[in-house]
Amino acid sequence: MNMQWLHNDAAALNPEIKQQALERQAELTKPPGALGQLESLAVQLAAMQGKVKPNLDNIHISVFAADHGIAANKNISAFPQAVTAEMVRNFSRGGAAINVLAKQLDSTLEVINLGTIGALEPLPSVLEQRIAAGTADFSKQAAMTEAQLDAALDAGKQAVIRADSAELFIGGEMGIGNTSSASAIACVLLNLPASDLVGAGTGLDKSGISNKSSFINQALKLHQHADSPLEILRCLGGFEIAALVGSYLYCAQSGKPVLIDGFISSTAALVASKLCPSASSWFFYAHTSAEPGHLHIMNALKASPLLNMGMRLGEASGAAMAVPILQMACALHNEMATFSEAGVSNKDD
Amino acid sequence: MNMQWLHNDAAALNPEIKQQALERQAELTKPPGALGQLESLAVQLAAMQGKVKPNLDNIHISVFAADHGIAANKNISAFPQAVTAEMVRNFSRGGAAINVLAKQLDSTLEVINLGTIGALEPLPSVLEQRIAAGTADFSKQAAMTEAQLDAALDAGKQAVIRADSAELFIGGEMGIGNTSSASAIACVLLNLPASDLVGAGTGLDKSGISNKSSFINQALKLHQHADSPLEILRCLGGFEIAALVGSYLYCAQSGKPVLIDGFISSTAALVASKLCPSASSWFFYAHTSAEPGHLHIMNALKASPLLNMGMRLGEASGAAMAVPILQMACALHNEMATFSEAGVSNKDD
Repeated sequence: MNMQWLHNDAAALNPEIKQQALERQAELTKPPGALGQLESLAVQLAAMQGKVKPNLDNIHISVFAADHGIAANKNISAFPQAVTAEMVRNFSRGGAAINVLAKQLDSTLEVINLGTIGALEPLPSVLEQRIAAGTADFSKQAAMTEAQLDAALDAGKQAVIRADSAELFIGGEMGIGNTSSASAIACVLLNLPASDLVGAGTGLDKSGISNKSSFINQALKLHQHADSPLEILRCLGGFEIAALVGSYLYCAQSGKPVLIDGFISSTAALVASKLCPSASSWFFYAHTSAEPGHLHIMNALKASPLLNMGMRLGEASGAAMAVPILQMACALHNEMATFSEAGVSNKDD
Repeated sequence: MNMQWLHNDAAALNPEIKQQALERQAELTKPPGALGQLESLAVQLAAMQGKVKPNLDNIHISVFAADHGIAANKNISAFPQAVTAEMVRNFSRGGAAINVLAKQLDSTLEVINLGTIGALEPLPSVLEQRIAAGTADFSKQAAMTEAQLDAALDAGKQAVIRADSAELFIGGEMGIGNTSSASAIACVLLNLPASDLVGAGTGLDKSGISNKSSFINQALKLHQHADSPLEILRCLGGFEIAALVGSYLYCAQSGKPVLIDGFISSTAALVASKLCPSASSWFFYAHTSAEPGHLHIMNALKASPLLNMGMRLGEASGAAMAVPILQMACALHNEMATFSEAGVSNKDD
């Protein structure tokens, strides 16, 4: 195991630049505070990038895909497990939601297959980093070995290293069964019963949700010994969730802003913040997921997501939707005239 | 007076296209409903445009500016009245928030001066349609004559006619004192006391808000005879608010989708919906304003705004922020692969 890097500190934000960005905001031709949250977003990005006028021209999206042993059980997902591999092919051909959104944003998009049940033929735009044929069924044993966890975390770090020129990193996931895995992790980290966290996933009905919840509570009894964030992640996580944890931590350590997607991604952000509390100063939260567990995670992270559109797709789609907000916040901050430039009377004149 | 056109019916949405768009949504490679509100936005736009695959490439923004007699009183605004004209010059030079956002959206932007206190020199990108040197002070008399109201409503209609090729119309406003005018209109239309509606505007403190509220309640006593939406608008409105009413109504009548901005614009939408209830089927609501009265108006219009960023600037800035959401909703609807195109197993397979 070579996981020492996980415990490195996050990079520091630049306090002088933050102060200069705040002063610039106060000079722009608008009543103070009239741009609401957009003002603090621009200031936060300035402090992250160490530039009074931050840029968000280059956006990178990495979508991690993997299967889950847990999905072989009844009551876990409304969709068959084969859909994970089918969706990887759909990503490759450009037909999925995240493909459309990445094109709209002119962002780079990379799909990393960490382990579908069946091996996939070589696919354009898909990086094969197969760890295993999905995780083990966490209702029977630990989902991953230590070596598998190490590999998955490292896959996340490597994705960030490849995205070196990006000014914002977005991670996404695809894996039938991964709302169960994420719910189980969040239950343990937040000390909440599954009934508080489990939702419809890809489309369970009310009795399906209740069965999924009981199933997860039962499975959690097997893993009561798991007493550290990494061990909880190893016992219950998916490869793609661990990769997200690794990517978020490495972004924070290397000073790259991150935009967190929905329920699964926020669970990974929660694990990352447990491993390294200062990491979360590099995180923006894109949207409030329709999964009921998401609000509990947002509260634990003291996060105020940018959007609330009732989305629950994953694939980084909710994060992609929020990118224009960050970009427009930067444009306003960088390009608006100041009171003196425009000859407009200020409030105190 | 030639205001008969205000009472024309709104255009009808296309029910067959709506059905086809709903069917297309169900075929896209995602769990049903997983794109949340984005799904219904795309379907609504399809029904408006009469095209299963709607387009939002051409966005037009008209910002109406005018001064308010009421602003000459103490306790109305944190900024001096001169700021209206100064901001029109700032719009002309490209330094205001809406200039930056229009550039980001590659949308057309037109500023129409309906009556600043002092006449303005000819300014690039500003259309002079001066009705008067601001409205009269509604704490002393009706804000507008009937001829002035007619001219302001018509200015809104003409702006929509000039925006003929736009697939979405956005109206904005600038006018020191216009939160007082909009609050007064909303008080009467919603039958609420000013204390429920009045907020900080451009930046009043707590006692300023209380004084503004008392002042408006007092002024409203003068206009108790005003018993129709048009008469309420004439007695209390600004030229720019009436122009927004005219533009929204003409959009609905001519079948053009509208994206409504914040508090002032929503007050205009409320007046428009009182004049023509079917008009509101053409309205999208961009954001929840930080002005406390806005929520009351949204409830009255049964509206669910797209964003909640704590903005309170006006100028169409909140509406501009929400444009990418509508555009991305269209792109997802138009460009995602269907289950059969992608060879992905559906939930019911």
